[in-house]
Amino acid sequence: MYRQYLRERENMSSGGKLKVLLILGSIRDGRQGLRVAKFMRRKLEERNFDVKFFYPVEMKFPLITQPVHFYGPERKGAPAILVENEKFVKDADAYVIVSAEYNHNVPPALTNLLDAFPCSAYSYKPSGLVCYSMGQFGGMRAAMALRAITGELGCLSVSNIFGIPTVQNAFDEEGNPKNDHMESGAKKMLDQLEWMATAMKNHREKVGVPS
Amino acid sequence: MYRQYLRERENMSSGGKLKVLLILGSIRDGRQGLRVAKFMRRKLEERNFDVKFFYPVEMKFPLITQPVHFYGPERKGAPAILVENEKFVKDADAYVIVSAEYNHNVPPALTNLLDAFPCSAYSYKPSGLVCYSMGQFGGMRAAMALRAITGELGCLSVSNIFGIPTVQNAFDEEGNPKNDHMESGAKKMLDQLEWMATAMKNHREKVGVPS
Amino acid sequence: MYRQYLRERENMSSGGKLKVLLILGSIRDGRQGLRVAKFMRRKLEERNFDVKFFYPVEMKFPLITQPVHFYGPERKGAPAILVENEKFVKDADAYVIVSAEYNHNVPPALTNLLDAFPCSAYSYKPSGLVCYSMGQFGGMRAAMALRAITGELGCLSVSNIFGIPTVQNAFDEEGNPKNDHMESGAKKMLDQLEWMATAMKNHREKVGVPS
Amino acid sequence: MYRQYLRERENMSSGGKLKVLLILGSIRDGRQGLRVAKFMRRKLEERNFDVKFFYPVEMKFPLITQPVHFYGPERKGAPAILVENEKFVKDADAYVIVSAEYNHNVPPALTNLLDAFPCSAYSYKPSGLVCYSMGQFGGMRAAMALRAITGELGCLSVSNIFGIPTVQNAFDEEGNPKNDHMESGAKKMLDQLEWMATAMKNHREKVGVPS
Repeated sequence: MYRQYLRERENMSSGGKLKVLLILGSIRDGRQGLRVAKFMRRKLEERNFDVKFFYPVEMKFPLITQPVHFYGPERKGAPAILVENEKFVKDADAYVIVSAEYNHNVPPALTNLLDAFPCSAYSYKPSGLVCYSMGQFGGMRAAMALRAITGELGCLSVSNIFGIPTVQNAFDEEGNPKNDHMESGAKKMLDQLEWMATAMKNHREKVGVPS
Repeated sequence: MYRQYLRERENMSSGGKLKVLLILGSIRDGRQGLRVAKFMRRKLEERNFDVKFFYPVEMKFPLITQPVHFYGPERKGAPAILVENEKFVKDADAYVIVSAEYNHNVPPALTNLLDAFPCSAYSYKPSGLVCYSMGQFGGMRAAMALRAITGELGCLSVSNIFGIPTVQNAFDEEGNPKNDHMESGAKKMLDQLEWMATAMKNHREKVGVPS
Repeated sequence: MYRQYLRERENMSSGGKLKVLLILGSIRDGRQGLRVAKFMRRKLEERNFDVKFFYPVEMKFPLITQPVHFYGPERKGAPAILVENEKFVKDADAYVIVSAEYNHNVPPALTNLLDAFPCSAYSYKPSGLVCYSMGQFGGMRAAMALRAITGELGCLSVSNIFGIPTVQNAFDEEGNPKNDHMESGAKKMLDQLEWMATAMKNHREKVGVPS
Repeated sequence: MYRQYLRERENMSSGGKLKVLLILGSIRDGRQGLRVAKFMRRKLEERNFDVKFFYPVEMKFPLITQPVHFYGPERKGAPAILVENEKFVKDADAYVIVSAEYNHNVPPALTNLLDAFPCSAYSYKPSGLVCYSMGQFGGMRAAMALRAITGELGCLSVSNIFGIPTVQNAFDEEGNPKNDHMESGAKKMLDQLEWMATAMKNHREKVGVPS
């Protein structure tokens, strides 16, 4: 049944494209995350998703002292970088969060970015977690922190977590995978994300969301 | 839009009833959880859900040495209690998990029950978390453990967690609430659960699930 | 300085032996945990520790309906298995907890055992975490749950976590390691555990503990 | 026995003073954390501890792109703010971490600060967690994240967590408590912290630490 659906989906107009916000949560020098994000971007585009990329280094996203919703419903006096980016968070149908692991939690640049926007912007949508580390445990402690964060934000993380151990050996600089596990790992998570994003999008369009 | 939907829903035939599996995770003597479960059951029935109740004390659910799927696709040699109850897990459209908190985790009788069934039985469905404690923090540490567990099982927990501090003062023995917070707390979580359960059920029926 | 101390320690009388309670948290058929526990027992004995082993399968430890301290200060009416084993928990200077990972949490047989005894029995002592899985992430999600549990119990877990991925390839049935990582992984954790256990024991003997 | 010890301790020379690093993890406008930190500072000074206060707002602590140890053993090219503050982290005998809760995790300004220094600077010492929220659950989700972080850093968090619900009603601007729970909550945690800090300091001075 699902295969039949996938074939039909290929013939759908681009009007139905899923919008995915890809978020990279590291600003450290020499970060490996960009390789992972490049790979994930390609995997998302191959599925014909409309991808927006949040990359705090290039956005020059500052350490914020107020989330955008603290400036009131009209966002009066809110920094432009918050106001402009809030609409991408709101517009997204799903989120893919690429995270390093620092001391068994997520990078501060990631929480700083996620915390900047209201739960209402994330709600009734799914997220997919991609965690990596230079060691052998693939950032799984960071993933556990993200289960809690995404749950609270309202973008429920799909079951499968794409964990990448020894990330430095897993991709080249352009995000080309050096082993087969990367393709299958991304696929498992993205299959779930696409399913959930479509289910929730259809239902949002049909009935709206509870106030 | 959502209100309009809710009015229309009232006219739907019972064929569309959501099946909810309500799970109580405590077997301790003098447990307060039964009061909470009674209350939740009523709240679920008021929404016209079809409720099945998993209560390990009455089920005499044993400490298991193998989950049911370890007995192979035909469940050969599996204890009857596992085989019989697996179908309720599979049939459910959503789960409500009522949990105490023991030493900042969930009761063993709860994980013992949840672990007994395969992820495939829980997947592509939502869950709602109801946590309680005799103290002031409402079982929120147990809730964090359940975020991880439900995520892995595949029944993603909805954003709102219904946390009940000083549970001994919150309900009478029949599960009648002694303050207004209980009604509003349950409502917030159940609104999300109903939305998610409907979204996912519709999509399962339309396209199946990824294999 | 620490090496000098280690040399001196070798000449100490057995009166100073550290008592370690080794706890295996799995009762599943075909469990790999026994191999890990056998290995850890040997590592502990090589350090001249006095090892007591809690193995729920052999203890026939039941799913409890009350922890032992709920029976009052004189443990009136408490099951013998709880009363008899409480003294080993109390007497221990340190704990080594060997845990599988089920659905991103710890096995119910482990929490059932740990929860059976009061925090006061565990307090002002350290614990060491040994987690394993058949997959690649070494039980690190279970370890995160144990950070919270041991913290609440009062037996603070030392920094280093000994995580064992693909445990089925790591030991033979007698707990002999099949690769060098096992020795070095155990050593790192046990060095910390021994240090902490000695520091805390010395201080308990010198000043008692806060009431 | 412990009371006797406390009396004797009062006669000790200041040479034995415990050094505590008090860390406030919020830079948000209108933050309540400063009230909590003022209160905790007073509680620490009443115990005759030598208190250093890390307050990222006043320190103008930047979002870092490299922790100080990534600059090599001589810290060549490291920003002065990292090099100068590292010595306070190293010199401390204990840490008190005051944390808000944002989306069920800790504030990014807190992880940014903690992550800036190496584990070796924190190791073989205890930490005490003080969490607060404007709601009813006292920041307990943030506390769970801090259990993992402090565990990995090496400054094991003591069992008791001082959780402060509805913090806006708990202190005045000078950090004077408006109810009795604050005194008793701080006391329970600090009794444990002092005990652990003394135990570990004594053992560090006696035997050094494992390399």
